[in-house]
Amino acid sequence: MTAPQLAVSTWFNTPEPLNLERLSGRVVFLHAFQMLCPACVSHGLPQAQRVQSVFRETDLQVIGLHSVFEHHTVMTPDALKAFIHEYRLTFPIAVDQPSDDGPIPKTMERYGMRGTPTAIIIGRDGNVEYHRFGIEDDMVIGARLASLLAAPIPDIAAPGPEAPGCTSEGCTIPDTEMDDE
Amino acid sequence: MTAPQLAVSTWFNTPEPLNLERLSGRVVFLHAFQMLCPACVSHGLPQAQRVQSVFRETDLQVIGLHSVFEHHTVMTPDALKAFIHEYRLTFPIAVDQPSDDGPIPKTMERYGMRGTPTAIIIGRDGNVEYHRFGIEDDMVIGARLASLLAAPIPDIAAPGPEAPGCTSEGCTIPDTEMDDE
Amino acid sequence: MTAPQLAVSTWFNTPEPLNLERLSGRVVFLHAFQMLCPACVSHGLPQAQRVQSVFRETDLQVIGLHSVFEHHTVMTPDALKAFIHEYRLTFPIAVDQPSDDGPIPKTMERYGMRGTPTAIIIGRDGNVEYHRFGIEDDMVIGARLASLLAAPIPDIAAPGPEAPGCTSEGCTIPDTEMDDE
Amino acid sequence: MTAPQLAVSTWFNTPEPLNLERLSGRVVFLHAFQMLCPACVSHGLPQAQRVQSVFRETDLQVIGLHSVFEHHTVMTPDALKAFIHEYRLTFPIAVDQPSDDGPIPKTMERYGMRGTPTAIIIGRDGNVEYHRFGIEDDMVIGARLASLLAAPIPDIAAPGPEAPGCTSEGCTIPDTEMDDE
Repeated sequence: MTAPQLAVSTWFNTPEPLNLERLSGRVVFLHAFQMLCPACVSHGLPQAQRVQSVFRETDLQVIGLHSVFEHHTVMTPDALKAFIHEYRLTFPIAVDQPSDDGPIPKTMERYGMRGTPTAIIIGRDGNVEYHRFGIEDDMVIGARLASLLAAPIPDIAAPGPEAPGCTSEGCTIPDTEMDDE
Repeated sequence: MTAPQLAVSTWFNTPEPLNLERLSGRVVFLHAFQMLCPACVSHGLPQAQRVQSVFRETDLQVIGLHSVFEHHTVMTPDALKAFIHEYRLTFPIAVDQPSDDGPIPKTMERYGMRGTPTAIIIGRDGNVEYHRFGIEDDMVIGARLASLLAAPIPDIAAPGPEAPGCTSEGCTIPDTEMDDE
Repeated sequence: MTAPQLAVSTWFNTPEPLNLERLSGRVVFLHAFQMLCPACVSHGLPQAQRVQSVFRETDLQVIGLHSVFEHHTVMTPDALKAFIHEYRLTFPIAVDQPSDDGPIPKTMERYGMRGTPTAIIIGRDGNVEYHRFGIEDDMVIGARLASLLAAPIPDIAAPGPEAPGCTSEGCTIPDTEMDDE
Repeated sequence: MTAPQLAVSTWFNTPEPLNLERLSGRVVFLHAFQMLCPACVSHGLPQAQRVQSVFRETDLQVIGLHSVFEHHTVMTPDALKAFIHEYRLTFPIAVDQPSDDGPIPKTMERYGMRGTPTAIIIGRDGNVEYHRFGIEDDMVIGARLASLLAAPIPDIAAPGPEAPGCTSEGCTIPDTEMDDE
C-alpha cells in the first residue's frame, strides 16, 4: 500500500514541515504515540530515539506522530511541547490533525492504526512495508530498517497484541470511540 | 521535624480528603511527583504503587502529591486525572496547592523539597523520618517503612543526586524559579 | 521452628567458619543457590549482594549457601571459587555438605528447601522467620529484614512459585531425586 | 579479512560438526563466550538466543564459541554441557580448542579476540564484516545482520569498551596471560 500523506497541524523539532512526497526515495520510520500512553513512554519513544541514534549515518528519517484519540482536552500541542522538552526527544514530531467529526485524528484514520504505540516503516518506493501496533523488539526493528535501507529480506515480523484498552503493550482504540465517527 | 500539614486543592482516589492530623499514629509514605517528570514516571510512581501493594496488610498510608513547579498551564488537575487513569494508580493523590506568588506549590515549599521525585516518610509520632530527592532502591524504602512500622533501626539511607535540572534521577527546582518567589 | 545448624564442607570470603549458635542474637539472611541456576545468577545473588550493602551498618549477617543438588561433578568448590571471583561476591559463602547417600546436600535437607534460589531469614531468637523458594521483591526482603532487626510487623509475604524444574523463578528439586534418598 | 577456520574440540546442539567452508554463501553470527563471564551470561548469550529466534526464517547460522582463557580447570566441556542444559541454549555451540602452549584457545587467537563476550559476523563471501568485544545494542546487531543478509549499508557500529579485566561490559584477556604465550 502506498503510504498516505500525513495530516499535520503542528510540527516540533524541525525548522520546516516534513512531507512524505519530498522524502520519497528515503526510508521513513514513523512512530505514532500519545504522551499519556504508558507503553509509548516506557518503550515506543525510547525505541524511536534509539532508531534516531543507531541510523544517524544513514538517510533514514525518523518522524514522531502525536495521534491523540482520547483525553483530547489535556493532550494539547502545548502539553506535548512540555513533554518533548522534559523527555529530551530530538527527532521531528508532528501533531496528527484532529478529525472534523470524531475522536480519531486524520493520519491515524488514513493509516488504519489500531492505537498507540504504532510503528510504521515506509520503504524507498513510498510503500508501507511494516505496520505494527504495540511493542516490538529492537532487533526486529533494526533488521527491518536495515533491510529496507538495502534490499528485501524474508519476513521476520512477530505477532502483535490483540487486547483492547490500555495495557502494557499499548492503548487500543475502543470500539465505542470508533462508532462515534 | 514535625511534618507540616498538606496544602491541597484537589484529591483523587479517595472518597474524602486525607489529613495528617487524623493520620497521626500511622506511618505515611508521601510521594511528590509531576506527571511530566520522567524519573517520576519510570521509577517513583511504580515504586509508590509497589509500596501500596507490599504494605497493604499494615496501617501504612500511601499518599501521592502532585507538586507542579514548572509547565503549570499543562499539568492541570484535568491532565492529572487522565494521567492517573492511564497509569492505573490506585493510591490517594493530592494536588499540591499553587503558591499565590511563585511557581513552587505550598506543600513543596513547606517541606523544603528540592524537586521531583521526592519520597518523604512520616513516623507514627508525626515527625518526618526520611526525606529523599531522586531515586532510591526498593530495599531501602522497604526497610525504612518496616522499621518505622516497628521500631528505629540504624541509618541505612543512601546518598542522593545533586545535579540541577531534569536528569534520570529527577527534576531539580532551578534557582531562578526559586528566586521568583 | 528453630533454625537447624549449617552443615558446611568449605567456606569462602570469611577468615573463619561461621556458626549459627555463635550468631545467636543477630538476624541472619541465608541465600541458598547453585552457580548454574539461572534465576540465582540473575536475581538471587544480586539481591543478596544488595542486602549486604543496604544493611551494612546493622548487625545483620548475610550467608550464601551453595546447595548443589544436580550436576555435582561440575559444580565443585573449585568451580565455585572461580564463580565467586568473577561475580565479585563479597559476603561469606558456605558449601553445603554433600549427602552420604543422595543428591540433596545436608543443610538443604535439614531446612526442607524445595530448590534454588531459596531465601531464609533467621530472627534474633534463632527461629526461622521467613523461608521462600524463588524470586522475591527487594521491597519485601528489605521490609522483612528491617522488621526482624526491630520488632514484628504484620505479614507481608507474597506467594511463591509452584512449578517443578528450572524456570525463570528458580530450580525445583525433582521428585525422582528426592526418591533417591 | 577472510574468516579463519574454527578450531573446535567438541560440539553441542548439532548432529554433526559445522564448518565455515561449508557455510560459505551464508551469513554467520559467531558469539564467543565463557560460562563464568558475567556479561556473557547476562547479555551476550541472551542476545545470541534472540538472534537465533528473530532470524529463524533466514539462512543465517548462529554459532556459540566457548573460548576459555581463564579458570580452565573448571570451565570444562562437562561443565559447559550442564550450563547449556540449565540455560536452555538451542543454537550450535563449539568448544574452542585449547592452545598447546598458552591460556588462549586457538580460534580466539586466530581471530585476535580481546576477550569475552565477542560478537563476530561473517558475510556471505566469507569475510569478517563485524568484530566487537563487549556489549552491543540489539538494534545494531539486528541492522548489521539484515544488511549482510541483503546488501551493504552505511556504517552504524557503536564504540566498544576499552577497560581491562572483567567489567559489566565483559572480560578482557589480561596482558599477563597474553605474555604467557
